[in-house]
Amino acid sequence: MEEKEISQAVISRLPRYFRYLGMLKDEGVERVSSHDLSRIMHLTASQIRQDLNHFGGFGQQGYGYNVENLYDEIGKILGLDKEHNLIIIGAGNLGQALANYMNFERRGFIFRGIFDNNPEICGTKVRDIDVRPMEDMKSFVERNNIDIAVLTVPKSCAASIAEQLVSYGIKAIWNFAHVDLNVPENIQVENVHLLDSLMKLSYNLVSHDKQGA
Amino acid sequence: MEEKEISQAVISRLPRYFRYLGMLKDEGVERVSSHDLSRIMHLTASQIRQDLNHFGGFGQQGYGYNVENLYDEIGKILGLDKEHNLIIIGAGNLGQALANYMNFERRGFIFRGIFDNNPEICGTKVRDIDVRPMEDMKSFVERNNIDIAVLTVPKSCAASIAEQLVSYGIKAIWNFAHVDLNVPENIQVENVHLLDSLMKLSYNLVSHDKQGA
Repeated sequence: MEEKEISQAVISRLPRYFRYLGMLKDEGVERVSSHDLSRIMHLTASQIRQDLNHFGGFGQQGYGYNVENLYDEIGKILGLDKEHNLIIIGAGNLGQALANYMNFERRGFIFRGIFDNNPEICGTKVRDIDVRPMEDMKSFVERNNIDIAVLTVPKSCAASIAEQLVSYGIKAIWNFAHVDLNVPENIQVENVHLLDSLMKLSYNLVSHDKQGA
Repeated sequence: MEEKEISQAVISRLPRYFRYLGMLKDEGVERVSSHDLSRIMHLTASQIRQDLNHFGGFGQQGYGYNVENLYDEIGKILGLDKEHNLIIIGAGNLGQALANYMNFERRGFIFRGIFDNNPEICGTKVRDIDVRPMEDMKSFVERNNIDIAVLTVPKSCAASIAEQLVSYGIKAIWNFAHVDLNVPENIQVENVHLLDSLMKLSYNLVSHDKQGA
């Protein structure tokens, strides 16, 4: 299937389609119209048709979408038909929380190692994953075909670690450090800036209160 | 200041402005042009002027923006000039990680209590915050003027807990459960769907590989 350049806004919605289709599939639903999808997902039917058309359009007029097909296709588009090997840098609370979250593995995101510069926790395990010293990162990345690095380190050291990771051949960084990374354009970065998210919630709370007053 | 309805896209960028202005402020920078901001933030200068115009426009032609003023103003817009009282529902790894993250408190987001339905951890503390049984949630929310609830529970129980929280008077939910909540329109919800974020990264990784191949 030919793929054109697709906006990040559309891509951001794909995992949500995947989630809802998975729910319908689990409920034994075989086909769904864009109208029905629009109702449960709180999107317009035309938005849904437009979004899915980017990927070739799997719907048929008068039939709608075959749930299992569409689910599988979107899964493939999202790269979920292959395994990804991940490492976590930073074995603090957040790094441990992510390592313990089994839903990632179920989707093919496999944590292969955790790295930390604290000698006291190196050698311990989180779940069944070894915590290793930072010095071992280079050879570990090279030997284990690691493609995604998860950055759960303080922002003060995030930039230099990101630079190292790129030099080791990492192609994608899932960044939880509260700083924007300057990496080459061919490196994919997805930021989870928790404080930014909380501030957005705070804005909506305060501005809603004002409107209500 | 009059505030119009502002798109969520603009609001999503505000915390990032706030972060960069905070960095400039810490570096002792007194004023900044939209051109300089655009360079460090990788946005266009006209985008920056447009965004900030939504809030009355703090810039002056030929001078640019006063860093400290703009920082303070955006902070107020984001509701950071007041304290928010938060509770966390779900004292698992992620709930504990959030409770331990001091940057939230520094911005006025104060965790007052953690709730969990596991009797074994009720009565313990995370940092200096008591873990309490779910039955105490109602009276705790009412007594402690809680305005934000953080949901770090499995998706299977997220909907019913959200419903309870709303009935107790909670006005905002920071939702980490991997499900969309159906709450009344006057309740603010900000989702952090970690798996969706990881899938987006996977999409970009895989589609970039294809283009490169």
